[in-house]
Amino acid sequence: MTENASQMNNLVVVGGKPTMNYVVACITIFNSGIQTVRVRARGGHISEAVDVVEMLRRVFLKDLKIGDIILGTDDHKDSRGRETSVSTIEVFLNK
Amino acid sequence: MTENASQMNNLVVVGGKPTMNYVVACITIFNSGIQTVRVRARGGHISEAVDVVEMLRRVFLKDLKIGDIILGTDDHKDSRGRETSVSTIEVFLNK
Repeated sequence: MTENASQMNNLVVVGGKPTMNYVVACITIFNSGIQTVRVRARGGHISEAVDVVEMLRRVFLKDLKIGDIILGTDDHKDSRGRETSVSTIEVFLNK
Repeated sequence: MTENASQMNNLVVVGGKPTMNYVVACITIFNSGIQTVRVRARGGHISEAVDVVEMLRRVFLKDLKIGDIILGTDDHKDSRGRETSVSTIEVFLNK
């Protein structure tokens, strides 16, 4: 997935890259004038999404407000075609 | 840490054990008559805490309501005595 595909409008999807990549992506969106950024992750990347939010809030954007936090589950098929499910998180950040 | 130490009153701290252990711990607390359970985790266990919440909500307690979700950071010293920080999550579940 390219950097562009993981970042549509105000959505940042956190995956396996260094935390700072996603922090910078969020700052870039805020700097474009957008007031709300959504940070989303699935499965084992959920912890990293929280790291991104915490680093933004504590280090880079101290007036950042954490809005709704939505937990959910995505059903999908794994590589062998079996039904499986994975937890998701979406955090709304407001400047 | 023993099972008792990780579960004080209405608090379930999610660590490295199987997800079902924590799911059962939450159900046990609800069954004792307590209306609110707090599910807490740090660092890489945050994803597992979301798995616990989602399994409870989707499979075992379909009328469960997710209340506040608090993200935070714990500062602590690592095994070499260096200051480090770790992200935390706490999810309030209401029966």
